[in-house]
Amino acid sequence: MQRPLEHIKVLDFTRVLAGPYCTMLLADMGAEVIKIEKPGTGDDTRGFGPYQNNESGYFMFLNRGKKSIELNLKSNESIELLKELIKEADVVIENFRPGVMKKLGLDYENLKQLNPGIIYASISGFGQYGPYSARPAYDLVAQAMGGLASITGHPQQPPTRVGSSLGDMSAALYTAYGIMVALFHRQRTGEGQCIDVAMVDSIFSLLESNVMRYTIEGIVPERIGSRHPISSPFDIFKAQDGYIVIAVANDSLFKRLCSIMGRPELEQDERFCKDALRTKHVDELKLIIEDWLRAYTVEEAVEMMNNGGVPSSPILNIQEICEDDHIAVREMLVELEHPIAGKTKILGNPVKFSKTPAIINKPSPSLGEHTDEILSKYRKQGII
Amino acid sequence: MQRPLEHIKVLDFTRVLAGPYCTMLLADMGAEVIKIEKPGTGDDTRGFGPYQNNESGYFMFLNRGKKSIELNLKSNESIELLKELIKEADVVIENFRPGVMKKLGLDYENLKQLNPGIIYASISGFGQYGPYSARPAYDLVAQAMGGLASITGHPQQPPTRVGSSLGDMSAALYTAYGIMVALFHRQRTGEGQCIDVAMVDSIFSLLESNVMRYTIEGIVPERIGSRHPISSPFDIFKAQDGYIVIAVANDSLFKRLCSIMGRPELEQDERFCKDALRTKHVDELKLIIEDWLRAYTVEEAVEMMNNGGVPSSPILNIQEICEDDHIAVREMLVELEHPIAGKTKILGNPVKFSKTPAIINKPSPSLGEHTDEILSKYRKQGII
Repeated sequence: MQRPLEHIKVLDFTRVLAGPYCTMLLADMGAEVIKIEKPGTGDDTRGFGPYQNNESGYFMFLNRGKKSIELNLKSNESIELLKELIKEADVVIENFRPGVMKKLGLDYENLKQLNPGIIYASISGFGQYGPYSARPAYDLVAQAMGGLASITGHPQQPPTRVGSSLGDMSAALYTAYGIMVALFHRQRTGEGQCIDVAMVDSIFSLLESNVMRYTIEGIVPERIGSRHPISSPFDIFKAQDGYIVIAVANDSLFKRLCSIMGRPELEQDERFCKDALRTKHVDELKLIIEDWLRAYTVEEAVEMMNNGGVPSSPILNIQEICEDDHIAVREMLVELEHPIAGKTKILGNPVKFSKTPAIINKPSPSLGEHTDEILSKYRKQGII
Repeated sequence: MQRPLEHIKVLDFTRVLAGPYCTMLLADMGAEVIKIEKPGTGDDTRGFGPYQNNESGYFMFLNRGKKSIELNLKSNESIELLKELIKEADVVIENFRPGVMKKLGLDYENLKQLNPGIIYASISGFGQYGPYSARPAYDLVAQAMGGLASITGHPQQPPTRVGSSLGDMSAALYTAYGIMVALFHRQRTGEGQCIDVAMVDSIFSLLESNVMRYTIEGIVPERIGSRHPISSPFDIFKAQDGYIVIAVANDSLFKRLCSIMGRPELEQDERFCKDALRTKHVDELKLIIEDWLRAYTVEEAVEMMNNGGVPSSPILNIQEICEDDHIAVREMLVELEHPIAGKTKILGNPVKFSKTPAIINKPSPSLGEHTDEILSKYRKQGII
C-alpha cells in the first residue's frame, strides 16, 4: 500500500508547537519530514517536560516519524546546503517571527527561483502582513486578541484561557489543510505557492456565530459559563463528588428531568414551563438542580439521567479520559518504543482513514540523527 | 486561474455546524458543494439567529458558495436519484448519528459499489465505532468527555466550556485535512476510501502535552486559570477598566516589569527573584501587580508595558476584534451581498494562499435553489 504522502519531502524549519504539530500531521500520512535543528540544543521542546529517561514527552509526541538534521542557519555553508535540499523538496514550512526567513535568504521569493513548484507555508502569531505582524506570538496573546478569552469563563469572573494551546493547535490544523490544498493544486497544475496562517486569525475563525451576533445584530457576546445560550437546563452542574453535564434542549426532555428529580410540579411552574422561560430563570433553575444533585455522586446522577432518557455525561479529567475504553478502541493513545525513553504513550491521530490509516511506528529522532544520511549525497557530489 | 478544488463535486448531507464548516472550507477553494436539505425546512441552522431580514447569519456564514437541493431522504425516488448523483461525485460527507446513512442504503459499503473512487467522510460525536458510538453528539458533551473542560477555568471554580463550539470546529478542521489527504491519494492512485472523525477524539487531540503529563509522569493536570504552568507572571490581570495579558517568561523581562511598576526591590525579593520562585508565589505576585494596575486603564497599562519592553496585550471583546484593523487587513470579515438579507459581514478564511486565495463571493443558497438545475439532467435522461 502506498501511503498518501509517500515521496513528499518536507523541509521543516518549525519549532515548539504550531509548526511541529502541522508537520506531524504530514508525517503520520507518510511524508518525509526533515526537521532542521540548531546545533547542540535543537528544538526548544527537547528541553520541555514531561520527561521519561530525560527524553521530553512533548518532543516525542510532536516529532514522531520525522528526521533530524543539525544545521547552523548562521553559516553560509548551511544556507547553500539548504538551497540544494530545497531544490528537491515539495514543502517548506517555518514558524519564525515574520522577516527571519528573509534575513536568511530563505523567503519564498528567493526559494521559488530555485524550485518554482515549492509550497511554502508560514505560521506566525499575527501573519506575514497586517498591523501587528512583527509582534511575538504567544498562545495566550492569540487567545486574548482573537476574542476567544472574552467569551470563555463565567459571568463576573475574568476572561479565561482555554486550558491547552489552542492558538497553536488551530493554526497547525488550518496550515495542514492549506498545505494539502496546495499539494492537490500542484498535482493538477504544477504550480507552487506560499501560504500564510496567523494564530489570531485561526482563533477568530473558531468564534463561529459569535461573530455574526455582532456584525449582524450588534450584540457583543459575553462570558456565560458553560451553559447553552438559548436552551436550559443545558450546562455543567455540581454533584456530590464532581460535575456532570445535563443537556435538556426542549420541553419534553425537561419533563423527563422533572420526573427523574421527583419534582413533576416544576414542569408546570410558570418560570420553567417553556425553554425561553427556563433560560430567563436559568440561575434559579440551576440552584434547584444542584440542590437535588447534592445527594448523588456523578456516577449515580449520570446513570439516572441516561436511564430516564435525559442526555448527560460526566466531565472526565485527563486521567479518566486517558484510561477510558473509548480512547483505547479509537487508538487515540499510541504506544511507541523510543530507543532512550523506552515505551511511551503519545496522542494518536484523530482522522481514521479506511485505506491509508495514520502509521505511527517511528519514534522522534535524536538531535542530528539523520545529518549524515541526508548530507552524504551532497558530500559525494562535492557540494559541501 | 484554476481554483484548487475546481471540478471536485461534494455531496453534502451535513447539518448544523461541524459538517457545514468542513464543506465551507472546500467550497472556499472552488469545490462544487451540493447541500442535500430536507424539504420545507432544510438545515436546522436556517432557523438559528442572528437574523438579517429573517435570513440566518449562522446559515449564511457556513453555507456561502454552496448549492441547495431539496430531497426527502425517506422517498425511494430520492435515494435512487442520490445514487445517480453519487456516481458523479468525488466526495460524500455526512454528520448523522452513526447508522442513519446505513438505514438509508447510503453507507460507504453500498456507495463504493457505485463509485469505487468515492471519498466518504463521516463526522460524529463519538465516531463510527467505539463504546459510545451510538450516543448523540453535543459540543458540550464532547468538550466534557474529551477532557478539555476539566483543565479550562479557574481553580476552585467549575470546569468550563470553551465559549464557542470547539468540538464541532476542530472535527471540521480534521475532516477537511482528511478529505484533502484522501483526494491527493486518489489523484495519485485512483483509490477512494472512507474517513471517520469523532468530536471527542478531536477535542482530546487538542490537549497536546497535558496528555503526556499523565501518561508519562502520572500527573493529572487541573484548572489553573489563564496562567502559564511554568513561567510567572504570565497571565491575565485586572486593570482599572478591564483585563490585560502580561507575558513575563524569564528573569530579564521580570526586571523590566519591576522597573515599569516602580518596584525595583521586587526583583531582589526572595519570593520573586527566579522564575520558579515566582511561579511558587504566583498568587502573591498577582495581588501586587493587580494592586498596582488599579491606577491604570487597559490602554495605559498595555502601552506602558510595551514601551518598557514587556510583552502585553489587551483582551479584545467580540466588538473590538471585529472592528480592529488587523481583521480588516487580513480579510477575516468578508462582505457578501445576499439577495434577501442584503449586505452581510461573515467570517473569512484564515488560510492566505498566494496563488489560489479563498474566493468568497457567492451567498448561501435559498432552500432548494439548485434543485431544478441539478435534477434537469436526470429528468431529461428519464431517470426520474
